[in-house]
Amino acid sequence: MAQKPSIPKGTRDFGQMEMARRNYIFDTIKGVFRLYGFQQIETPAMENLSTLMGKYGEEGDKLLFRIQNSGEKAALAPEKGLRYDLTVPFARYVVQHREELSFPFKRFQIQPVWRADRPQKGRYREFYQCDVDVIGSDSLLGELELIQIVEEVYRRLGINVCLHINNRKILAGIAEVIGAPDKMIDITVAIDKLDKIGVEAVNAELKERGLNDEQIAALQPILNLSGSTADKLTALKTILASSEVGLKGIAELEEVFELFNSQLSTSLNSKPSTLNIELDLCLARGLNYYTGAIFEVKALDAQIGSITGGGRYDNLTGIFGLPNVSGVGISFGADRIYDVLTELDLFPKELQSTTQILFATFGDAELHYALGWAKELRAHDIAVEVYPEPTKMKKQMAYADDKKIPYVAIVGGNEMETNTVMLKNMATGEQKQVTLAELIGNL
Amino acid sequence: MAQKPSIPKGTRDFGQMEMARRNYIFDTIKGVFRLYGFQQIETPAMENLSTLMGKYGEEGDKLLFRIQNSGEKAALAPEKGLRYDLTVPFARYVVQHREELSFPFKRFQIQPVWRADRPQKGRYREFYQCDVDVIGSDSLLGELELIQIVEEVYRRLGINVCLHINNRKILAGIAEVIGAPDKMIDITVAIDKLDKIGVEAVNAELKERGLNDEQIAALQPILNLSGSTADKLTALKTILASSEVGLKGIAELEEVFELFNSQLSTSLNSKPSTLNIELDLCLARGLNYYTGAIFEVKALDAQIGSITGGGRYDNLTGIFGLPNVSGVGISFGADRIYDVLTELDLFPKELQSTTQILFATFGDAELHYALGWAKELRAHDIAVEVYPEPTKMKKQMAYADDKKIPYVAIVGGNEMETNTVMLKNMATGEQKQVTLAELIGNL
Repeated sequence: MAQKPSIPKGTRDFGQMEMARRNYIFDTIKGVFRLYGFQQIETPAMENLSTLMGKYGEEGDKLLFRIQNSGEKAALAPEKGLRYDLTVPFARYVVQHREELSFPFKRFQIQPVWRADRPQKGRYREFYQCDVDVIGSDSLLGELELIQIVEEVYRRLGINVCLHINNRKILAGIAEVIGAPDKMIDITVAIDKLDKIGVEAVNAELKERGLNDEQIAALQPILNLSGSTADKLTALKTILASSEVGLKGIAELEEVFELFNSQLSTSLNSKPSTLNIELDLCLARGLNYYTGAIFEVKALDAQIGSITGGGRYDNLTGIFGLPNVSGVGISFGADRIYDVLTELDLFPKELQSTTQILFATFGDAELHYALGWAKELRAHDIAVEVYPEPTKMKKQMAYADDKKIPYVAIVGGNEMETNTVMLKNMATGEQKQVTLAELIGNL
Repeated sequence: MAQKPSIPKGTRDFGQMEMARRNYIFDTIKGVFRLYGFQQIETPAMENLSTLMGKYGEEGDKLLFRIQNSGEKAALAPEKGLRYDLTVPFARYVVQHREELSFPFKRFQIQPVWRADRPQKGRYREFYQCDVDVIGSDSLLGELELIQIVEEVYRRLGINVCLHINNRKILAGIAEVIGAPDKMIDITVAIDKLDKIGVEAVNAELKERGLNDEQIAALQPILNLSGSTADKLTALKTILASSEVGLKGIAELEEVFELFNSQLSTSLNSKPSTLNIELDLCLARGLNYYTGAIFEVKALDAQIGSITGGGRYDNLTGIFGLPNVSGVGISFGADRIYDVLTELDLFPKELQSTTQILFATFGDAELHYALGWAKELRAHDIAVEVYPEPTKMKKQMAYADDKKIPYVAIVGGNEMETNTVMLKNMATGEQKQVTLAELIGNL
């Protein structure tokens, strides 16, 4: 036999169980998005290279997959590339379709993206992103709704999470008061790594990026602020008293907290909230287009990094010639959520099989008989399989076992005579003879 | 302002309304697939070129999109290509994962495919395929289930269809009895065009493909067979009396018809069947891997060609080194089904908006008040939006209009005092003051 076929490194096949679990995550998230009036769009897998190039930094340009028509001469430079994220196609979409859209435009998008990264554990060359954004309004209601969406998604999934929140304007204010207003990006990029590399390495990087010792020293008490969110905000107000933008950032955060806290959990939600919120002054997020609130969500019971993140941007569509359109968005990391649910054993058991019952038969007449029952059950919206041949009973039962089908209806001559089937519960092994009406009632 | 951004020719953006309609089609089809125990898989967008090349004929190889890592030298030949259909990746999947799968393996797959075809009306470079197959069994139950799936999908969508059915073994028998047993593929390819180019052009092509006048003359009465399916089968049995394979094909078809007809529609289905079945001896289907039953489905009330097609194959996985695995599958053409539903105005009206109610407010206090109501409604699984700013009422109402939101809850000082909202039905213009409990009851 020939060599086993394979797929490109960094890509994955998803079998039926993985798909059931992935769909559970996507359906949960979509259900919550829709509760808030967000509507789905899709964009093509390939975009013009001119749309993609220069949007992700030099490093990003190198990670784009380029596409060549087979007919094209190899010498011809490719003009198309695979989508690298959902944010740039979204900005392109908003500018291209702006006359057809009602603003504020609330959209979600769940599609794969491709990056020519070196594949490694947990990092793939094809993976899904799951983005939700509202664009065309600078109301802080946007931030509120995204936090509520995070709360509701993780409540439904049963994952305890902490939402870390910060505001880019506070970071700008900090850069201002330590006397390095032009170094906001450098400070951001460096302190973004605090969790990973520790305070000394961050300080070394700050120095490398041109901050002097005095400025670095001035930054330390801010990085070390502790206590409750209210305590931190009070201390910050003093520290940033001379920075207009810094105070604006504090005011925005305070309003978001106030809005969220005034929305008391209703008694109607059967499950309690699984969300904590924490002001995290070391949260910076690498991307340069954020201008206001920034978020990151971490699972409390699993060590896996950020599972959701995003923030407010004021000029995302500017790159395509439509300036000054404010928006706010977040992205759910489906692969990491999958890993958390697996690690904590939180996937619902009923995802194991969609088929509720298999008919196993002893002969052709029985098979025919089973087909009639199957049709009747399907008319009641019950998912049914009929084993396609009256082969060895052991083989038919093994098929039900493999597919984790919870019930098998065994049909022999006796069952046909009495107009019944022998219903076997595969979990308990229990068997009983039932009529069609009883079977429908049972399932 | 800069030039408006655009997308590559032959690709499409799908806005919220198109997505709602496309999801309606996909969800309907998936719901029926699951009733029969088919389970979803997904494969990567990119496959190794060695997996794809030589599988679609010379023409197909030219239509493959090839992928280059940006890091790779342009001189380096690309090693990956975008998926051209779902059949070859499915065959690759079955061979690669054969040890993990339970056979018969019933899978469905709904993913985009890419072809570097010249774009034209109704032909795109990126489009979705929607495939369902059972592999690892030669039982004609497979054919029966696929026909039942076609019947149920189109019943649910409300489209009147005719399922044309034929059998490749009958075509082989015909080639045999007219004395051109080695010309089965040539005959197949030529008569596949009968509908499009007419009998004379088909005969000319047959001659070009090496059939002599006698053979072409012998073929004519078969192409012209008329009457009911039973009449045609009776006549064929005489014509193909000397061909073992031809008689096998007739017997297979007869059994499929008998199985289907014995499965009388149950009284429980509220909507009657919208399916006719017709034996069509001119149906050949271009693809060479079919070996048994072949199907094509046409909408009766729209001129749009085939909207579903497929057939039985005995050696699909042979190309990857696993011979003699029989299967049968069909593919639903989502784009064409979309066009039929549009032309016949069959999309459900409730797809127009997922949001059931918009809160429109006169001031900040009212906005705050509305947020509390929104949270309460969402806890009842009602999709709600709150207009994010208390701007001009006209603008807020226009937003509801644009998004086709059926109800607006208007909140002013009076409503806050009486703990109510003014509920406006956007279709009738009717307004009434309601309490929260009344509103929940209303929606």
